[in-house]
Amino acid sequence: SHRVKLLLLYLSTDNGLVESLQSCPATNPSMLNVHLVPHTHDDVGWLKTVDQYYYGDRNNIQHAGVQYILDSVIDQLQKDPARRFIYVETAFFYRWWRQQSQSTQRIVAQLVNEGRLEFINGGWCMSDEATTHYSAVIDQMTLGLRFLNDTFGECGRPRVAWHIDPFGHAREHASIFAQMGYDGFFFGRLDYQDKARRMKTKEMEMLWRASESLTPPLADLFTGVLPNGYNPPEGFCWDQSCDDAPIRDDPDLEDYNVDEIVQKFLNASYRQAAFYKTNHIIMTMGSDFQYENANLWYKNMDKLIKYVNALQAKGSKVNVLYSTPSCYLQELNLANLTWPLKTDDFFPYADDAHDFWTGYFTSRPALKLYERLSNSRLQTCNQLEVLGGPKSKSGPFGEGDSDTMKRAMGVAQHHDAVSGTEKQHVAYDYARRLATGWAHCEVQKHNHHSNTLATLGSEAPRVFCENLNISVCPLTESSHKFSMNVYNPLGRTVSWPVRLPVNGSVYSVTDANGRVVPLSKSTQEVRRNRGYAKGELVFQVEAPPLGYSTYIISMLRDEPPASSAKPTVTLSIQNKFLKVTFDDTTGLLSSLTDLETDQTIQLTQNFYWYNASAGNNKESRQTSGAYIFRPNSSDPFVINKTAETQIVTVSSTVQEVTQRFSPWVSQVVRLYEGHRELELEWTVGPVPVADGLGKEVITRLDTDIKSSDYFYTDSNGREVLERRKDYRPTWELKQTEPVAGNYYPINSRAYIKDDKHQLTVVTDRSQGASSLYNGSLEIMLHRRLLYDDFRGVGEPLSEPGEFSDGLVARGRLLLTLSPPDTAADVHRPLAQGMVLQPLLSFQDGTPSANTKLEFSGLQTSLPPAVHLLTLSQWDKDTALIRLEHQYQAKESKTHSQPVTVNLQKLFSTLEVLGASEMSLGANQWKEDMNRLHAKDPSPWEVTLNPMEIRTLLLRVRQL
Amino acid sequence: SHRVKLLLLYLSTDNGLVESLQSCPATNPSMLNVHLVPHTHDDVGWLKTVDQYYYGDRNNIQHAGVQYILDSVIDQLQKDPARRFIYVETAFFYRWWRQQSQSTQRIVAQLVNEGRLEFINGGWCMSDEATTHYSAVIDQMTLGLRFLNDTFGECGRPRVAWHIDPFGHAREHASIFAQMGYDGFFFGRLDYQDKARRMKTKEMEMLWRASESLTPPLADLFTGVLPNGYNPPEGFCWDQSCDDAPIRDDPDLEDYNVDEIVQKFLNASYRQAAFYKTNHIIMTMGSDFQYENANLWYKNMDKLIKYVNALQAKGSKVNVLYSTPSCYLQELNLANLTWPLKTDDFFPYADDAHDFWTGYFTSRPALKLYERLSNSRLQTCNQLEVLGGPKSKSGPFGEGDSDTMKRAMGVAQHHDAVSGTEKQHVAYDYARRLATGWAHCEVQKHNHHSNTLATLGSEAPRVFCENLNISVCPLTESSHKFSMNVYNPLGRTVSWPVRLPVNGSVYSVTDANGRVVPLSKSTQEVRRNRGYAKGELVFQVEAPPLGYSTYIISMLRDEPPASSAKPTVTLSIQNKFLKVTFDDTTGLLSSLTDLETDQTIQLTQNFYWYNASAGNNKESRQTSGAYIFRPNSSDPFVINKTAETQIVTVSSTVQEVTQRFSPWVSQVVRLYEGHRELELEWTVGPVPVADGLGKEVITRLDTDIKSSDYFYTDSNGREVLERRKDYRPTWELKQTEPVAGNYYPINSRAYIKDDKHQLTVVTDRSQGASSLYNGSLEIMLHRRLLYDDFRGVGEPLSEPGEFSDGLVARGRLLLTLSPPDTAADVHRPLAQGMVLQPLLSFQDGTPSANTKLEFSGLQTSLPPAVHLLTLSQWDKDTALIRLEHQYQAKESKTHSQPVTVNLQKLFSTLEVLGASEMSLGANQWKEDMNRLHAKDPSPWEVTLNPMEIRTLLLRVRQL
Repeated sequence: SHRVKLLLLYLSTDNGLVESLQSCPATNPSMLNVHLVPHTHDDVGWLKTVDQYYYGDRNNIQHAGVQYILDSVIDQLQKDPARRFIYVETAFFYRWWRQQSQSTQRIVAQLVNEGRLEFINGGWCMSDEATTHYSAVIDQMTLGLRFLNDTFGECGRPRVAWHIDPFGHAREHASIFAQMGYDGFFFGRLDYQDKARRMKTKEMEMLWRASESLTPPLADLFTGVLPNGYNPPEGFCWDQSCDDAPIRDDPDLEDYNVDEIVQKFLNASYRQAAFYKTNHIIMTMGSDFQYENANLWYKNMDKLIKYVNALQAKGSKVNVLYSTPSCYLQELNLANLTWPLKTDDFFPYADDAHDFWTGYFTSRPALKLYERLSNSRLQTCNQLEVLGGPKSKSGPFGEGDSDTMKRAMGVAQHHDAVSGTEKQHVAYDYARRLATGWAHCEVQKHNHHSNTLATLGSEAPRVFCENLNISVCPLTESSHKFSMNVYNPLGRTVSWPVRLPVNGSVYSVTDANGRVVPLSKSTQEVRRNRGYAKGELVFQVEAPPLGYSTYIISMLRDEPPASSAKPTVTLSIQNKFLKVTFDDTTGLLSSLTDLETDQTIQLTQNFYWYNASAGNNKESRQTSGAYIFRPNSSDPFVINKTAETQIVTVSSTVQEVTQRFSPWVSQVVRLYEGHRELELEWTVGPVPVADGLGKEVITRLDTDIKSSDYFYTDSNGREVLERRKDYRPTWELKQTEPVAGNYYPINSRAYIKDDKHQLTVVTDRSQGASSLYNGSLEIMLHRRLLYDDFRGVGEPLSEPGEFSDGLVARGRLLLTLSPPDTAADVHRPLAQGMVLQPLLSFQDGTPSANTKLEFSGLQTSLPPAVHLLTLSQWDKDTALIRLEHQYQAKESKTHSQPVTVNLQKLFSTLEVLGASEMSLGANQWKEDMNRLHAKDPSPWEVTLNPMEIRTLLLRVRQL
Repeated sequence: SHRVKLLLLYLSTDNGLVESLQSCPATNPSMLNVHLVPHTHDDVGWLKTVDQYYYGDRNNIQHAGVQYILDSVIDQLQKDPARRFIYVETAFFYRWWRQQSQSTQRIVAQLVNEGRLEFINGGWCMSDEATTHYSAVIDQMTLGLRFLNDTFGECGRPRVAWHIDPFGHAREHASIFAQMGYDGFFFGRLDYQDKARRMKTKEMEMLWRASESLTPPLADLFTGVLPNGYNPPEGFCWDQSCDDAPIRDDPDLEDYNVDEIVQKFLNASYRQAAFYKTNHIIMTMGSDFQYENANLWYKNMDKLIKYVNALQAKGSKVNVLYSTPSCYLQELNLANLTWPLKTDDFFPYADDAHDFWTGYFTSRPALKLYERLSNSRLQTCNQLEVLGGPKSKSGPFGEGDSDTMKRAMGVAQHHDAVSGTEKQHVAYDYARRLATGWAHCEVQKHNHHSNTLATLGSEAPRVFCENLNISVCPLTESSHKFSMNVYNPLGRTVSWPVRLPVNGSVYSVTDANGRVVPLSKSTQEVRRNRGYAKGELVFQVEAPPLGYSTYIISMLRDEPPASSAKPTVTLSIQNKFLKVTFDDTTGLLSSLTDLETDQTIQLTQNFYWYNASAGNNKESRQTSGAYIFRPNSSDPFVINKTAETQIVTVSSTVQEVTQRFSPWVSQVVRLYEGHRELELEWTVGPVPVADGLGKEVITRLDTDIKSSDYFYTDSNGREVLERRKDYRPTWELKQTEPVAGNYYPINSRAYIKDDKHQLTVVTDRSQGASSLYNGSLEIMLHRRLLYDDFRGVGEPLSEPGEFSDGLVARGRLLLTLSPPDTAADVHRPLAQGMVLQPLLSFQDGTPSANTKLEFSGLQTSLPPAVHLLTLSQWDKDTALIRLEHQYQAKESKTHSQPVTVNLQKLFSTLEVLGASEMSLGANQWKEDMNRLHAKDPSPWEVTLNPMEIRTLLLRVRQL
């Protein structure tokens, strides 16, 4: 499906190889060339759902209909070969393409081949950069790029990454784009102070070195800041949604305005050129959902180009042309300049002194978790599709697929989806799409079991108990005997705790080999669970890599439970690795000890809320809202200085302490046997707002670690960046928001450290975090607000709960304490285990005798440094695999080393017949990418350097 | 330029001949056929100027851009031959057409030839019906229809008149449409009570017999009331300006709604069909400025047609199709029904109990006068172009033309132009366009004089003194000797009074034959004129038919004026025909005597104002505004019970009495020597509103004529209709507004009468009038309001004056008193003399010796019954002439008779080489019109029956 390339290769100057696009318009080297880039920015959901945007429904909310945009642009492009258009969001283009006639499809393909319609970015959506996980970002890009590649071949391959709207830019995104073979990256939003400085120093365009681990230029990316966000210069918006004056060029009519408009355009061009280095400048001619009636834009731009260029005959030195970002970028490369180097990221984003877009790092915490869990499900679904073969897609349980979940996850990555910045009804729609994805995957899982377990005859129905998080599962609550299948999507065996709601008093659990599994039973009023289960069975489970194991759970007695143990007076719990103490007057955590090194830190943890600004501040009317975090004061209110704290469970499996802070804030502190992390399971909500105060709830860990102003946050769940309070690495920060201006996104972890200790927090979803005091780390957990924040969503962020009383959110923070030089050895695998959760499924009764109770898709566990990022069916006989080195360079003495995997020794049930390496986006063969890559020891052996991801298309056969 | 007809002729059932359009879509005789008519309603000015609408400028006021509408529709029509569109306003189409490439023009012509794009109505604009004069209406229709005919030939000829928006419908308009050869007429607005009754009795479609004088079916017109105004049924508006749900027909997506929409459409169709007689119904699929992005409409209508008709296979009896009004009309004709007969008109229009659209009859009185004067100028301009030949268009004074004025008058007829219902800035734009038209005509007049006067060498500049109405003319004020050229656009000699501002004390005036002209001089403080002239010379002038005469004015003395005569105690003035008396206590008029019959009526006249509703009435929130007249009380406030009244001038030329009612209301009462009318020159304004009360100023004539509830008003300046208080001829009126519900438009005259007396008022512009009491006639003169009336204009009607203190309006009412059976002999010619004003031009100094001081374009005056309605250059060697019988049948013993004119004996300087009769719109040869027409005695002799207009294209040669 990869068509013949139509492009020539050029050797460029300093950023590696750049291709010259034959189809780019001619420019004039002796003039200022103004590249007009007609474009539309089509959110795959925001104020309306992705369906409503596609069809143009609910135009009373926002006028936008993508079907019409594409109809109109294709019509208009045909009218003049000079006209260009770029299209970005494949989620929309894919829908539209399927509804076109063959003749329209032929026309579109021709426009693409001629470079008149160019795909830019090309992912399923334009992902959020603060709240997304790299795994889901790579998947959604792959989904979009594959559609383009399958449909249009090489001419459909986007050359340029284009994140014109996301609210800050993650270094990991830049690294991903570089590894996907993009020639450059453009965006629109950056800190207003940063932008002002860059304009002054002509540093609007730069080279972003986006990894500290990958050898340059592997993660180097040319990056440009667009001059006007993604809008046209003032006065030149000719969309139907704009009110700017059209060009009235009939001299017989009254309001002829050509001379005035041309002069205004020349002025705008020279003004802009002053901020850029070359004699080429780019103007984004479009905006949100524009070009629904493309004629308005093109008719006026045609005239603009005609009349501006006509002045060249009178000595004007401005040459304006239709262009695209890649054609503009080609000219920059030909300019043979050296660009300034950028090594940090573009967080946080502020568009004014009191307008920090750091609230959305936490907005909609439940959606953020559901998205993260959905990623786990999708990976499982993908793996089962490969391991189960074609039979899993269609079997006795119907038609299942991973495509529905892939598309649902694709739109969920959008910068108004998982970001939490959409309207409430749209948030529901994203969740519904994910739920539909889960259902399609479950069918596949059913089929997979029915096939691979080689069970004959009928079985009891398999159920998934999606509500275990609130302790609801009708099967486990009622059954006297049932089996639980645990699927492990990781490349190595991991042990997870499992909690099942039950009503019996005594149970036994046996594993696949018939061994009795230690278990405990707990009743935790403080968790405020739903449902009617009297208690929970708690035990740890394991499954082989890429495989499953089956546990049998039997109720032994069904009597009233014995009264639970009274709390002990001295509060402390411990296992082999950690000891935790609680203050006996406050009930709060008081210390944490690493029992292996016998190092102890003072550790206090409590919950607080910032009072959200209501916009009544004299310095600024800015409120806290879905995007913006703006506390009224830098000092948060404490929920409670003391907690009602009890040890509720002490068993060989788990030790649990419950803490009740208020009717709406509680926590369970847990140490599992054999685990190196302390689990804090928090429950927050419904956040009360009857007092008229919006609340942004945090938990803060205060330690005696001498972290000074420094702390560390991950970028999209991969590499970690150093943060420093009231400081930015690339400009002299004037700090105007002492709290909000120090918040950064965390996707999987954050830590503080000194020479001796590193306290790492691994989280279950994306959140905002900061360190405002020496030894302190705070994480925002939940937000409930009373005002819109004027960035378009038009609603206060106040999520309804089950009974309209406000959303309850629950989550987990995993704390590890280690010396800094071994910390990664713990938090890296811990975080991967958090991201990829086991898939549990249940069946009533006892499995039949011929049931295979355990299975592994791998011959053996992967090496500790290697993470199986992707295993997904590609074509009939091929599978896509991504192997990842999960350690950064230098962060682990043990693991930050090259590691080699033999592809032929990987799978237990698949024979690998061939392997071809591809770009990270899987839309180019590696040898076409013109980027350096590692030399491997043999054709079947793949060597991974720290943080490297190798993407391979494997030809496989089921054994 | 008249192309070969592509159409077949059919003999139809009862309304004369109707053509069958080959291109009409197939229908299904056994089903309910729903004709979808895609259309746009494009006001040639309203909230924005016509230029702004065309280009899509000022979209912040209203989103509308006609250039894009036509671009878009033409694109979309090409996508499917089933799609149809109608276009109405040629003012816009003409602009657009000129800007298209030849290839686009070819495509459009093809679409027209195939009936896919059909022109409907086709005038320059969709004229107002209440405030327009038939002369200007015929001209604007001719302008539009000619463009269509020249451009597209027979296939471009509109078959259907289409007045979907005007606010009430004039019988004369229907008569004009019938005489223009339209097959039918559709409109949208009629009284809500009338509509309810018609729906109930299935009389939404009817035959309108629109003349009491013309022999049926000459003025018979099939007339249909559209079901939803001009909008689509509720829920089916798919324009970009609407929010209705699009058809979502992808079953894979979330919100599939085809079944729901189809069912809703079937319901709407059956509901509508219940109000109409045949198994065909029409749905207007469009509205104001819709189809700017026609794809939205067509894409969804394509789906609607597909899915609704797909149900026929399951037994549905609804057949929906793209259609046009003419195709719908063809089906009605084939239905072979007899339609109910309508003989009155559709005024006044009310859309609810307290919402009578009778305010706009008077709104913007100054614009209404300027438009009327502009018509006079245009007729003069047209005549000079014929008489002067090609040399007048281009001569020593530059390029002049009548086209600019034709187009300016074309847009001024629009139902939001002369109607006064546009925004203030748009009213200014119409006036500016007319002024530009005047300037172009003046150049032509200069050239004409320079050519026809055969003057050698240079002459003093010719000036026009457009501000004589406010007594300003720098030349006459300063010159000691000057000449005045008087052009008479009428077909007979008429004497007009002239008033020139002067500063000298004694003047002499001589006519073209050197005879001294009697004159008087007056100073009238009460008129509150602008400028600095100390007084006015008043004298009467004459010019030969279609010709001019020259007067020489010399200042004899320049001394301080003698103090004017003291007022006599007994107030009465009289001339040969009339005697007028004033009450010596009130100063008001008290009686009027016809001295020829010696009949006297009691006549009191005074000024009043209705207090405009501010919307604070408990029955309805309706305010008075630009459209709506709604007085707070039926009793108007009197401005003053007494007037300061003085006889100021008594001379052989004129007798003048001034009346001062208040600082803002005054009047001059005049009797000119030899004239049969009493002139009342009123000056009203600035209307004070500092008291917070909007005012609607009337003058009321109270007499002892026993008129009972009856009064009479003209229709567009031609035939007169009988009115009756609180009564409608076609339904049982429930009167809800005792004043506003009895107002009717008058364009040229109104009268009350009994057996002996007829008091006729001839007016200088369109106004609203009523008779609310026996013997009373009231006319609304001016309005100044404080609130918008919720019909879209979004402004209160409060016109600024010269110094922002509110507009001052001045006008004339001409009163005649006669026995009813001879009244028309006076008011018919009087009204024509009011409509066609003499054109005065001035030159300093004495004309050179070889100057021709007098000229007539006619060999002799036309017969008294004949009015030269049109004389206008057509092509190089042809001129368009319209001869009109200006009397109704039976209204004059003397003149209501057939009269014959010999075309070859008409012109003094033109030889008529050939003559072909055309339809009234001049876009069809008469023999193609399929309507009966009179037989003439000889090829050159044209016989006119009462109220008949004959339109002829003459081949002429300058002698």
